[in-house]
Amino acid sequence: MQYIRRLFLKLLFVTIVLLLSWAPCSGSLGPKYMFLFIGDGMGINQRTLAAQFADHPLCMDKFPSHGITTTSAANRFITDSAAAATALACGEKTNVGVLGLDHGLKPLKSIAEMARDRGMKVGVITTVSLDNATPAGFYAHVASRKQYYDIALALTKSNFDYFAGGGLVDVENKRSHKADSSGGGGNKIDDTGIQTSVNALDLARKNGYTIVTTRGEFLSFAPGDGKLIVMPGGAGKGKALPYELDRQETDISLARLTQKGIELLQGESGFFMMVEGGKIDWACHANDAATAVADIIAFDDAIGQALEFYEKHPEETLIVVTADHECGGMSLGVVDTGYETNFKLLEYQKMSFQGFRNEMVNRVSSKVIPPSFEDILPLITSSFGLGPGGEANINLSSMEMDKLKAAYGESVSHIRKKVTHFSHKKKKVSKRKARQKCPEGNNKASKPSIFYGREDPLTVTLTRMLNHRAGIGWTTFSHTGIPVLTSAIGPGHGAFSGMYDNSDIGKKLMVLMGKK
Amino acid sequence: MQYIRRLFLKLLFVTIVLLLSWAPCSGSLGPKYMFLFIGDGMGINQRTLAAQFADHPLCMDKFPSHGITTTSAANRFITDSAAAATALACGEKTNVGVLGLDHGLKPLKSIAEMARDRGMKVGVITTVSLDNATPAGFYAHVASRKQYYDIALALTKSNFDYFAGGGLVDVENKRSHKADSSGGGGNKIDDTGIQTSVNALDLARKNGYTIVTTRGEFLSFAPGDGKLIVMPGGAGKGKALPYELDRQETDISLARLTQKGIELLQGESGFFMMVEGGKIDWACHANDAATAVADIIAFDDAIGQALEFYEKHPEETLIVVTADHECGGMSLGVVDTGYETNFKLLEYQKMSFQGFRNEMVNRVSSKVIPPSFEDILPLITSSFGLGPGGEANINLSSMEMDKLKAAYGESVSHIRKKVTHFSHKKKKVSKRKARQKCPEGNNKASKPSIFYGREDPLTVTLTRMLNHRAGIGWTTFSHTGIPVLTSAIGPGHGAFSGMYDNSDIGKKLMVLMGKK
Repeated sequence: MQYIRRLFLKLLFVTIVLLLSWAPCSGSLGPKYMFLFIGDGMGINQRTLAAQFADHPLCMDKFPSHGITTTSAANRFITDSAAAATALACGEKTNVGVLGLDHGLKPLKSIAEMARDRGMKVGVITTVSLDNATPAGFYAHVASRKQYYDIALALTKSNFDYFAGGGLVDVENKRSHKADSSGGGGNKIDDTGIQTSVNALDLARKNGYTIVTTRGEFLSFAPGDGKLIVMPGGAGKGKALPYELDRQETDISLARLTQKGIELLQGESGFFMMVEGGKIDWACHANDAATAVADIIAFDDAIGQALEFYEKHPEETLIVVTADHECGGMSLGVVDTGYETNFKLLEYQKMSFQGFRNEMVNRVSSKVIPPSFEDILPLITSSFGLGPGGEANINLSSMEMDKLKAAYGESVSHIRKKVTHFSHKKKKVSKRKARQKCPEGNNKASKPSIFYGREDPLTVTLTRMLNHRAGIGWTTFSHTGIPVLTSAIGPGHGAFSGMYDNSDIGKKLMVLMGKK
Repeated sequence: MQYIRRLFLKLLFVTIVLLLSWAPCSGSLGPKYMFLFIGDGMGINQRTLAAQFADHPLCMDKFPSHGITTTSAANRFITDSAAAATALACGEKTNVGVLGLDHGLKPLKSIAEMARDRGMKVGVITTVSLDNATPAGFYAHVASRKQYYDIALALTKSNFDYFAGGGLVDVENKRSHKADSSGGGGNKIDDTGIQTSVNALDLARKNGYTIVTTRGEFLSFAPGDGKLIVMPGGAGKGKALPYELDRQETDISLARLTQKGIELLQGESGFFMMVEGGKIDWACHANDAATAVADIIAFDDAIGQALEFYEKHPEETLIVVTADHECGGMSLGVVDTGYETNFKLLEYQKMSFQGFRNEMVNRVSSKVIPPSFEDILPLITSSFGLGPGGEANINLSSMEMDKLKAAYGESVSHIRKKVTHFSHKKKKVSKRKARQKCPEGNNKASKPSIFYGREDPLTVTLTRMLNHRAGIGWTTFSHTGIPVLTSAIGPGHGAFSGMYDNSDIGKKLMVLMGKK
């Protein structure tokens, strides 16, 4: 009897051991559903600040695996979004500005193309325009990220199932840099009159895409309706979704775009979906922490949609969240406040830097004599909570007031010069010529100021002033080479622990997809 | 026959499975040898810069596990070294300034004390003084980190086997804050004349410690010689080991102190050893990247000693490397250089900020009429490579020269005021009174300047200028709340992957030690 009991116990033990040893193998199958979230410009500090500021724990912080990711480009320590997107999408380092080609301009294959070729559905979602570097890295192969028309053509030919973003910069080959002028040589474009005049949107429709620009069309598009391009901004420069701080209820959020992607793409074939929080970067270029944080929380809401899907399909869904680079050199500690911080002050900022700038430009341009600083002060107070009677209860010192006055003077000067040049139709001065003639009249063309970068002087002075009061510092208006944080959940998540390069993320995703 | 063959194959399979399932269990035994390395003020960016600058991969970057560690204190987002040391050593959050007590001032037990009580040997090594917050967090339990005498007494009573660091601030109860004045109430000190006059070094000797201050004594001390305190600086304020940039061949390095610790403590009982790179923080407070980087590389050399030991005892040795907090808000990207960086410029800095300041103070104090800026310029050029004829080949703009001149003026003014007050013996003005009378004459007592912090104006302007040219920015002269990086190798290393709080490091170490 005792012998049988012992045998039974031994068998039970062996069975448990076998089960335990097999259990980890369930994770070695490739995920059927793969999400890659990219917070553009979202450094570790930006994530930390958002986590401190949000009234709930961030979804991405709950993931079981986290890794430190280096971001440098093949030819520069501080990367741009093109080289970074190529590394993340294709698993190879390349030079800054290059998309989907290696540093010798040899074409690479992206994880999204690999998914497509394996019969999976593919979605590419962003808050910026669809031809912007980060999304384009997943479907385009061009020597310059500025070849917007070539990128648009690549999009129409990608056969991916779902594109959603602000718009497309150049669908008629009017604005783009040509391959030859980009410094590259590997990318050939056909520049005969007929080919370049093809409208990329027409080509997309010809290739089976439905293009929607309104909320109604977006909401009514259903699974089984075919391939979809969502671009509320349509064609043209700067077509991005609004910043979260400025978003109206009728505007489609990144979370809603992600949810739609899941509805449309889920099914037997599985999917790969890239979702970019693209304007976190833009807010950090402008040194505007409140706008960046709101966009990170909105980005995290989109991750929340994926996490909800993961919870239904935990054995089949991998979610990876990363960033392409840090932007702004954001720090959580600044000389003005020493060891103290007060991040809640950011709540008093009611609109993005862009919203404020637009409103100010509007007021300055609409009158023959521009408003005085005192006239503008109520707008400052209501937008940032700063100044006498402001919600933040922050009295500005005379030095701070002088700084704002000086910055406003610079802003007015810039705005008036632009207005004079560009509205003076009799002279028929083209924008390009105007820029050449009067570089200081156009922020984009002039040398960036050490105080204001390429931003509007008053706006950037205000965001930085509020940020400093909150304990947040910045060292630059550009990207930095600081490593970023990658987080993962789902089968294979363990591969994203540790310390690795951004090109390794592309490689790891490909290995995991190869297992499917 | 076939039945036997099948049975044999099945048994073989089960054996392999058992071996495979047991293999990971070897890591579940607690490590016999445990190292905890703490880079004080060593943020992720500081580590990244050191890795970029060093001519070899850093040891700590080769570790298999890395985690993101939050650092805030119980009562402040930005911690100090005391609260952080308590979290790392005792696994509990506490208020800033508090050592080895929780935020209600209830005593905690440190991992080092746990090791001692389990019969393991214990070593505490640092580049700063032995009673500084980080080392003290492993053996002292006081409401204020400034209770230096109480901390020294705790050291003598710890029964730890090996202490090595710069020195001890107060061995005779002459300089320390008393428990009552620290704002705490949990710590009782006996303030009768007899007890407070006990010299802590005498007490240490009485308790079996050998105290060595010279290189010769240090080298000749051998395993079996008993308990050892190495303190080349002896007793007094600011007794730290030299910065790596200023270290002479005859000075004992942190790596050598660590190697000695291994020699003395290894054996059947196992050991716990804490090694602190304490002056990385001081260099970052001064916004001096070259000095910080050199000290990180020296700290990594000490890790190299542990790694060599690990390679001989891989199944028994755990090494964890972390930081208590970031300092300075260091960024790798700055407005002056945009997307470009040139970290190699740091090579032209030939001495630490402290070395330069001392040399300048010496020149200014030694003459009746202080040297002009032009007189000082050759020292600037030879120390930092900046200016005409400098090795770095950096011509300073007239704006930069004006900035340096203004800073030098401030420096001279500060130095001369100090000299006037402190050398005027007829008036018998005590240092404390002099500070009260003339706060601007003493950096430590005056309100920190937004431009220079509490640093010497010329020195900090120079380090920041060189750093900016290299693409390195700073946002503060204080700590920040930016998470730090933790890396681990050895049995249990996987516990240090992911995202966790600094107090979790103490907890994890205790769990692992409990398994021994």
